[in-house]
Amino acid sequence: MTKPNLQIALDQNTLADAARIAHLAGPVVDIVEVGTILELQAGQQAISVMREMFPDKIIASDTKCADAGSTVAQNSKDAGADLMTVIDSATIATMKSALSVLSGIQVELYSAWNWDLAKEWKKIGIEQVIYHQSRDALLAGEVWGKKDLDIVKGFIELGFKVSVTGGLNVDTIKLFEGVPVYTFIAGRAITGQDNPKAAAEAFQEEIKKYW
Amino acid sequence: MTKPNLQIALDQNTLADAARIAHLAGPVVDIVEVGTILELQAGQQAISVMREMFPDKIIASDTKCADAGSTVAQNSKDAGADLMTVIDSATIATMKSALSVLSGIQVELYSAWNWDLAKEWKKIGIEQVIYHQSRDALLAGEVWGKKDLDIVKGFIELGFKVSVTGGLNVDTIKLFEGVPVYTFIAGRAITGQDNPKAAAEAFQEEIKKYW
Repeated sequence: MTKPNLQIALDQNTLADAARIAHLAGPVVDIVEVGTILELQAGQQAISVMREMFPDKIIASDTKCADAGSTVAQNSKDAGADLMTVIDSATIATMKSALSVLSGIQVELYSAWNWDLAKEWKKIGIEQVIYHQSRDALLAGEVWGKKDLDIVKGFIELGFKVSVTGGLNVDTIKLFEGVPVYTFIAGRAITGQDNPKAAAEAFQEEIKKYW
Repeated sequence: MTKPNLQIALDQNTLADAARIAHLAGPVVDIVEVGTILELQAGQQAISVMREMFPDKIIASDTKCADAGSTVAQNSKDAGADLMTVIDSATIATMKSALSVLSGIQVELYSAWNWDLAKEWKKIGIEQVIYHQSRDALLAGEVWGKKDLDIVKGFIELGFKVSVTGGLNVDTIKLFEGVPVYTFIAGRAITGQDNPKAAAEAFQEEIKKYW
């Protein structure tokens, strides 16, 4: 089974803080993500900085695009992003519009999806989804469980590359054993640690144990 | 019936271009919005610039927040925003989290809402929604009609302040005659004109004709 990617979500409030963490942990990960919070704070420049720092890595732009798909995709692409997120409640027209500019469109699953819609996304050429435990849901006490795994597996069966995110830490990785996850996205479990590089390495070692 | 507000949506790719338009048309409108495209491009600075240019106007931050509600709301508030959008597919936990920081939270209606959910939003303290013809839907040929008006009226009956947006121009304002719309949001019908100030004035005159 292919080893899942490790993606670092940079959701700092300043580009300086994100660059500090990326400088330390970036070399260890497979995908560097400019998170929504950072992008809203620092703008497109945050993507360009990561692109220049890591010319050989995959760069993800977490715009959670809801409208004006081609414009947002063009801006992300111009800044150097390979991947860009759209929100599940965006229209099919918006998703198509984004896809016309950037093939690496990922639908981020919040509360608006269902299996029929997922099949429609597949039909228009969407290849990736992000299954998401919301930060606020986690704060409200929800945890990863069988229900989540079944959904992840369902999307994989439909042919999607599935990234998972939301409250992941080194201990939760093994819950996904045997599941061909495309990417584990970790935020504060790496960025919030005293040693972000060591934290990223611990994730990679744990992933290699099971895949 | 109270005169609806006129809101200008600044969705330029650069802060310079947005500032040029705001300098011309801003004094005429009631609410200045930093649109999602601009905010993703220029970051929080776009909000600060509009706040400083228009200290007495309402400033809206169109983050379409989907997660990390309190963080995104705090950042918008710190930059000077009075209003901030959340996406309809955000969880109730995210909406509550955003509301805990900024009372001017507006739910932007894409494809994830229903009337039961709307009542839940009301219950947790959300006072505003934005009814939205998607730009991509408009490009796909959809237009404002009775279906849209009925939804707008439904939200008003539930007690929400309702902003409407998406492909509005001076000629579509009269479609809403008799409906206590809270705000008309215009983008390119103002920002894309040779004379944005005159375009904004034409909107205000048309609104005054019917309210």
